[in-house]
Amino acid sequence: MQIAVLLYDRFTALDAVGPYELLSRLPGAETFFVARERGPVRNDQDSLALVADRTLAEVPAPDIVLVPGGPDARVAMDDPEILDWLRAADATSTWTTSVCTGSLVLAAAGLLDGRRATTHWLAFDELRALGVEPTGERVVFDGKYVTSAGVSSGIDMALHLLGRIAGDETAQTVQLLTEYDPQPPYDAGSPEKAPAALVAKWRAETGKPETAPAGTE
Amino acid sequence: MQIAVLLYDRFTALDAVGPYELLSRLPGAETFFVARERGPVRNDQDSLALVADRTLAEVPAPDIVLVPGGPDARVAMDDPEILDWLRAADATSTWTTSVCTGSLVLAAAGLLDGRRATTHWLAFDELRALGVEPTGERVVFDGKYVTSAGVSSGIDMALHLLGRIAGDETAQTVQLLTEYDPQPPYDAGSPEKAPAALVAKWRAETGKPETAPAGTE
Repeated sequence: MQIAVLLYDRFTALDAVGPYELLSRLPGAETFFVARERGPVRNDQDSLALVADRTLAEVPAPDIVLVPGGPDARVAMDDPEILDWLRAADATSTWTTSVCTGSLVLAAAGLLDGRRATTHWLAFDELRALGVEPTGERVVFDGKYVTSAGVSSGIDMALHLLGRIAGDETAQTVQLLTEYDPQPPYDAGSPEKAPAALVAKWRAETGKPETAPAGTE
Repeated sequence: MQIAVLLYDRFTALDAVGPYELLSRLPGAETFFVARERGPVRNDQDSLALVADRTLAEVPAPDIVLVPGGPDARVAMDDPEILDWLRAADATSTWTTSVCTGSLVLAAAGLLDGRRATTHWLAFDELRALGVEPTGERVVFDGKYVTSAGVSSGIDMALHLLGRIAGDETAQTVQLLTEYDPQPPYDAGSPEKAPAALVAKWRAETGKPETAPAGTE
């Protein structure tokens, strides 16, 4: 089982490393961070660099493809080499997955046409503009396509995937060993739960209209 | 506000990147990954490398020190250069923090003597052997010393810290923007919640006796 985590300039670190940490513990899995070129790739805050150990060409047919998001997912969406690699990898993948605005990259590659999918809550309109209606769920399975909500949701997605791939006991083992027993001191992790003023502020700052995802009206 | 995240060979990636992702969003924060030498540092799975952008000597007095854990925390515990840096940094830090077995490193540096602290549930006895009684809580504050449980707990610790440092609204904003609204499909994230057979299996495999943390009997 080969897992490829795509890196591109200004990716969001936890989008990649959250699910990586869990999925890479799959017995027998071989995991690679891949990018156009080998070497360090800087994140959206510029203070972190993850090393791509393989080029895209060196990992042409992974079983699991994972695309992290970032505030500038355009970097990947506008890169023909990345889109071509994604389409080719998807042709033989068992799972094609994304976290956060990584789904915009999958959509830009044409892989989400007619599918159920999601993205970061502030990127719903961008996903719609690519012809895909966001569901607003945290983790969305549609066949082999698995998309998840913002940043930290990739950890939940990874647990779901581990269960589907290797069974409940393996998923529970990984949850136990990573002590994923979340106890956030606030309950502000979604636009439905956060203080309305905060949500409105961020919608205004980012120029996003207040439109609900399908099925939440 | 300067934040230093310590890297050492075979660290656990999510221990570092989970809290990094949240803490680095603190307004005005400047975050550095630091290690004995600049350059890539490989994790416990060997499939990930994070770049240390600064040497320890280059970041002598961070406001927040964060020490990730790893299955081989001995790498850091037995390194006099790391322990000396920790003691010196701690002398002026506002917060000295750890995730998972990172607390063993703080304890080895003598920074947890007589304090309340915690670590990964499979490392309780190792913390005890260093003279510190693990509390079994997910995030433990004792003055400026903040330790957290295994791997994923650093995300909760970071939210607590953001609240203490910058107030509830900043912490909630970061929670909202990282969509930290956990929805794990299993409830096996602690030895109290996971299937007993799994817990027993891992205690046996790692040679850990079944002793409860203080206050949980």
